[in-house]
Amino acid sequence: MRDVAATSIRVTGGILFLLDQQRLPHEEEWVACREDHEVLEAITQLKVRGAPAIAVAAALYVATQIARGLASREETRNLLQLLRSSRPTAVNLMHALDGLEQLLPEDNWQELLQQEALRIFAQDVQLCEEIAVAGLTVLSHGSRILTHCNTGSLATAGRGTALGICTKAHEAGMDVQVWVDETRPLLQGGRLTAWELEKSGVPYALICDNMAGALMARGEVDCIIVGADRIAANGDFANKIGTYSLAVLAQYHKIPFYVAAPRTTVDMECSSGVEIPIEQRHEDEVRGFAGAVLSDGAPKRGSFLWSKQSAPVSNPAFDVTPAALITGWILDGGVVLASEEGRFELPPEKHPEPSGGAAEWAPPL
Amino acid sequence: MRDVAATSIRVTGGILFLLDQQRLPHEEEWVACREDHEVLEAITQLKVRGAPAIAVAAALYVATQIARGLASREETRNLLQLLRSSRPTAVNLMHALDGLEQLLPEDNWQELLQQEALRIFAQDVQLCEEIAVAGLTVLSHGSRILTHCNTGSLATAGRGTALGICTKAHEAGMDVQVWVDETRPLLQGGRLTAWELEKSGVPYALICDNMAGALMARGEVDCIIVGADRIAANGDFANKIGTYSLAVLAQYHKIPFYVAAPRTTVDMECSSGVEIPIEQRHEDEVRGFAGAVLSDGAPKRGSFLWSKQSAPVSNPAFDVTPAALITGWILDGGVVLASEEGRFELPPEKHPEPSGGAAEWAPPL
Repeated sequence: MRDVAATSIRVTGGILFLLDQQRLPHEEEWVACREDHEVLEAITQLKVRGAPAIAVAAALYVATQIARGLASREETRNLLQLLRSSRPTAVNLMHALDGLEQLLPEDNWQELLQQEALRIFAQDVQLCEEIAVAGLTVLSHGSRILTHCNTGSLATAGRGTALGICTKAHEAGMDVQVWVDETRPLLQGGRLTAWELEKSGVPYALICDNMAGALMARGEVDCIIVGADRIAANGDFANKIGTYSLAVLAQYHKIPFYVAAPRTTVDMECSSGVEIPIEQRHEDEVRGFAGAVLSDGAPKRGSFLWSKQSAPVSNPAFDVTPAALITGWILDGGVVLASEEGRFELPPEKHPEPSGGAAEWAPPL
Repeated sequence: MRDVAATSIRVTGGILFLLDQQRLPHEEEWVACREDHEVLEAITQLKVRGAPAIAVAAALYVATQIARGLASREETRNLLQLLRSSRPTAVNLMHALDGLEQLLPEDNWQELLQQEALRIFAQDVQLCEEIAVAGLTVLSHGSRILTHCNTGSLATAGRGTALGICTKAHEAGMDVQVWVDETRPLLQGGRLTAWELEKSGVPYALICDNMAGALMARGEVDCIIVGADRIAANGDFANKIGTYSLAVLAQYHKIPFYVAAPRTTVDMECSSGVEIPIEQRHEDEVRGFAGAVLSDGAPKRGSFLWSKQSAPVSNPAFDVTPAALITGWILDGGVVLASEEGRFELPPEKHPEPSGGAAEWAPPL
């Protein structure tokens, strides 16, 4: 099986390696996935995160096992079932595993499954490229872009969605700067987005989430671009908690507010944002921080609570931003601007020839 | 010298004790201040924080030294000079030390300085009571109040300003609930306000700063009350970073937004908020957290960086909220509501008889 490389996912010499995102940014350690329990641990322990990245990693793991002759048809079926149970709510993972499973009855199933895994990888890279190219049209030379959470090359096989637009603009010589919200409680901005932008050489500054409004008031933000977990048919979308506050602040300060995502994020079954359920996560996430830190100059991992364990907490993981607050939806098919009435209309899908974007992009490592 | 007691300041048996706020909420340790270096360390190492609390602690320390016969007139003058240099920017501290110094030439200076220190303590308690009583008029039974930072009994000799209104309403049986913003980067909400409200038995829930907007959208916030570091003559005010975003979010959701502070916070020399300089603090505050944490079940103190030490950071400690976004200013003289044009007019000062509020209030410890 041929080698592939993304920022957080690699196949080298027929073995899948994943960059341990739990150790970032203090240690860059690649975890080899030679056995089932290793890839399962990587998924359940969030060493690999981001719905597209999880799907790509799972598909590539199955392909490497087949290429190395370690999995019969029956063993492959069991492995797909095992992987399916690792993150039951990640839809991208289910789609990827379904695609592999459909090929199992074929005579040349081994070859076909490997091809399909590589296709899933390449398609994700391609979608990111198309979103990035579309996103450039909303930026100007010198744009100061504010973003939230991590939507970059760690979360996908490609350059990412909202953050991919920022790195693309930088590569295009547009002299952009990025304001990175730290994104409490899990601090994906402070831990992951800052790490990615440093790697890519994009000028940025990290801020606490509550500083965004003051920056806008001082005229230091030209536009806001965020990702999306799900876009409803009317254009409302769910994303990491804090996104909605940014959209309200953007409207008050007359700053354009964009959401960037693949078309597959649009859920036409979901008529509006009120139908999107909001997950409440564990209280300790708000009481402190768990993960990798630098302490006394050395990397450590653990749980650090600055509030009392008894503190009552509300911890909604996502919020919903209504279409009325959105300037435009940056999709792989192009940018959909809000209508005069602030309405969202998904244009019919185009089927362009692959532009070869996958080959153009190299992870910044 | 007689005993006095506040939440974070006590005189017992002629000795000043300060509650070490750097160890809260995991350890409640009182630091005895028997010698000059002990009180100076407590101030410079932020064991005592909050401008009113620092001023009261310094004045009481001087008084205890005089009462114990440890300071001649000349030694007292040197001690005042030493304390003045401990936090050069805290105006309350300067006012308190000036008040003590003016009495040094008097024959019965020892008695007068002790009386003055006790007067400073009692006056701070009294101002907090008057703000709290005024604040009750903007609340209803069952109000869900959102607050920011720590403006409670840890920061003053009394019950505090914005947070004092919340505890007063609770004691009055108004069945209020408090949303506590954690207040990055220094987490005064998560560490200190949560601790105070638990002590006082006030129902509350801790949230990350970026969750406030989503709560407002869901109709779960009835009003917002915050403190102020400085109020300009036109009603604009500076307060902990994040306050301005809350004010914008409040206006969008048509939620009343109040600022609570003693009249002495109004700076008539400062015509508007644009004149208030905004301090940029150390970058490591945003890269992580330094202070007391609970880790593996045990209290530890240290510095914990989840971002890389090389991450560029912007860390404005305060922001300015314009008068146009403010529903009312809750002062010790009563509530000043915004005029039709959103303008602030400071009413002439009243000189009411002391209501004995000091005696009414007992710290919740």
